[in-house]
Amino acid sequence: MRRFLSVLRASSPAEARRALPLCRPYSLLQPQQEQQHDQTGDRPSFGIAFDIDGVILRGRTPIGGSPQALRSLYTDDGILKIPFLFLTNGGGVPESKRASELSRLLEVDISAPQVVQGHSPFKRLLSRFENELIVAVGKGEPAEVMSEYGFKKVLSMDEYASYFDEIDPLSQYKTWTVRQITDNNSNSKPRDPHPRFDAHRSKVQAAFIVSDPVDWGRDIQVLCDILRSGGLPGKENGNQPPLFFASDDLEYQAVFPSERLGMGAFRIALESIFNRINQNPLQYTSFGKPNPFVFQNAEAVLKQLRSNIFGMMLTENVREMEGSSFKTIYMIGDNPSVDIKGAKKAGRPWFSILTRTGVFRGKENHSEFPADLVVDTVEEAVDYILRREST
Amino acid sequence: MRRFLSVLRASSPAEARRALPLCRPYSLLQPQQEQQHDQTGDRPSFGIAFDIDGVILRGRTPIGGSPQALRSLYTDDGILKIPFLFLTNGGGVPESKRASELSRLLEVDISAPQVVQGHSPFKRLLSRFENELIVAVGKGEPAEVMSEYGFKKVLSMDEYASYFDEIDPLSQYKTWTVRQITDNNSNSKPRDPHPRFDAHRSKVQAAFIVSDPVDWGRDIQVLCDILRSGGLPGKENGNQPPLFFASDDLEYQAVFPSERLGMGAFRIALESIFNRINQNPLQYTSFGKPNPFVFQNAEAVLKQLRSNIFGMMLTENVREMEGSSFKTIYMIGDNPSVDIKGAKKAGRPWFSILTRTGVFRGKENHSEFPADLVVDTVEEAVDYILRREST
Repeated sequence: MRRFLSVLRASSPAEARRALPLCRPYSLLQPQQEQQHDQTGDRPSFGIAFDIDGVILRGRTPIGGSPQALRSLYTDDGILKIPFLFLTNGGGVPESKRASELSRLLEVDISAPQVVQGHSPFKRLLSRFENELIVAVGKGEPAEVMSEYGFKKVLSMDEYASYFDEIDPLSQYKTWTVRQITDNNSNSKPRDPHPRFDAHRSKVQAAFIVSDPVDWGRDIQVLCDILRSGGLPGKENGNQPPLFFASDDLEYQAVFPSERLGMGAFRIALESIFNRINQNPLQYTSFGKPNPFVFQNAEAVLKQLRSNIFGMMLTENVREMEGSSFKTIYMIGDNPSVDIKGAKKAGRPWFSILTRTGVFRGKENHSEFPADLVVDTVEEAVDYILRREST
Repeated sequence: MRRFLSVLRASSPAEARRALPLCRPYSLLQPQQEQQHDQTGDRPSFGIAFDIDGVILRGRTPIGGSPQALRSLYTDDGILKIPFLFLTNGGGVPESKRASELSRLLEVDISAPQVVQGHSPFKRLLSRFENELIVAVGKGEPAEVMSEYGFKKVLSMDEYASYFDEIDPLSQYKTWTVRQITDNNSNSKPRDPHPRFDAHRSKVQAAFIVSDPVDWGRDIQVLCDILRSGGLPGKENGNQPPLFFASDDLEYQAVFPSERLGMGAFRIALESIFNRINQNPLQYTSFGKPNPFVFQNAEAVLKQLRSNIFGMMLTENVREMEGSSFKTIYMIGDNPSVDIKGAKKAGRPWFSILTRTGVFRGKENHSEFPADLVVDTVEEAVDYILRREST
């Protein structure tokens, strides 16, 4: 409750965004929305999960009427009335930062818990690697993402590779801008001017591909060095440390007319090379859609969001309601083999809606992974949902 | 002859290097070297091919007593007396530049024809692509290499990619130094401020991987775009243009203690991704060792070098001698699966010598590709050859 009240008084938007979404009990809403409850009483019976790239944004530009669509999930005075979240395989920045950015681009108030990225499940591995040396790979701020999750000894690949002279024989042909940290994580290990461990002695205990790798050649080389040697590049062969990918998208829709290669393509490149130079095949775990547990996790987050709605009412049956199920959760995505396949694998209460603003451009439904509904834009999808739920 | 005389008067070392090597007829050499001829008369009966990386140099540092070894192939006054060449899968600079660099590092006078790089065979494709738009990929000066071979419409991948906005969604995370051309090729197409073709309309007719790619992610992406679309990124699918690799080395020995990934690893990455996103599997041609024709070509070059020796004598039987065979050509390399495998596949007159200064470090001979002789260093190898040939 205190966090909520503080939000209602939030002086800065940033402050507000760090907090949970502003919600209001459905019983206070206008009549036609009274209908949006199931038989068990005042309880929202549905939630929505939005893919971002190719549905809400292309690059940094809103598409498909996404700002209008999202605004219809808030009251006129900007208070959230429908529990929704963003379910993306993308990432590279902490959820709090991504929420601020989305709020800016889409002109609605989005909170950190409403942003579920490909790497968000890495949090769950904290107990296993909290105090172990780990390497975080990918664009943006992979080490900051892991530091925010609580990992204490995380190095970005940029920084880790810099400890090993000549590990990248092509570095002389590159001039990278190594991102300096400007946020409040300056006390986290990667930024420590006197790291309390020695990369030449401490074995890397795990590698995390947090976001799309930028320097594929260097990253594949150093990952092969780490994984083949058992965590110490240049040393004898050893047991492969665990390797985790935030997602496994082969391609995704960006600004360029045709799809761009994603983390799944990087995984294929790394795996096919590693399996040629190493006796044992690459062992790895991929998170992200279409992995069904991603959808189960999203359902749990949506329940939490809904319980916050009721939390404001101080009703006595919050706990009971937290556990109760949604009649329907809508997955709105552009990628049949990621969003639609995942929602169908997750089963009830998921209902899949495929837009034509991204990867999928077909006239009819997708042949291999047909969605429950195909529409042109996310705005059409939300209109459909609100009509369907209000009848 | 005129070129030779001009060399003898060469005022600058650069001038000398652009010309053929300085040679002297064997009949003028001291008695014990009189023996280095076969029964058919005054004719050198052997030649030597040196691998560079891991045999002659590690990075830019001479190894294995290579300067002394090479010096023993010249007379005391620096005149070449044994026909030899460098046979490397490396590259990225024109042969003339590489010869100058090697002369500087090894302190002997090496001429352009003595440098056979992975991409040297690309010359042979000139008649097919001389006036077609082609893309040259890799570290160094890939477009200059192709321009020197005579290709008229060559663009480096750096320059080609720059014509397509957003083709590389990760470019915002990179700051490359695009190499500006400072040599005399300023009139070649890539340097033309007003190119006479439009990359958005002209189809790429072929892609050449000249040297190790630097930006793997961007290069794999754009190559997939070119190859999948039939030469126009972002357009509909089309027939794959031809793709040529200068070599197919999986790994090679550089300065770092363990081997580094080579062009063969890049090929595996590109091929495994392309075959996942394209209906037809990747078609390509790889040059470089251990391809047997590389060794046949080296033999022809050595014969030419030898005939230049005799050319200085103005003997009447130069033509006859040009065609005649070597009794032995020695391949000195560090990589069993590249140098030794190749020499053995090439058969007579090749004799393979494996050093322990690079990829191979074993005590005994290599099990899968045993060499005719195993020594510690290139200096030992040359000592052995000179002893063997002088008895």
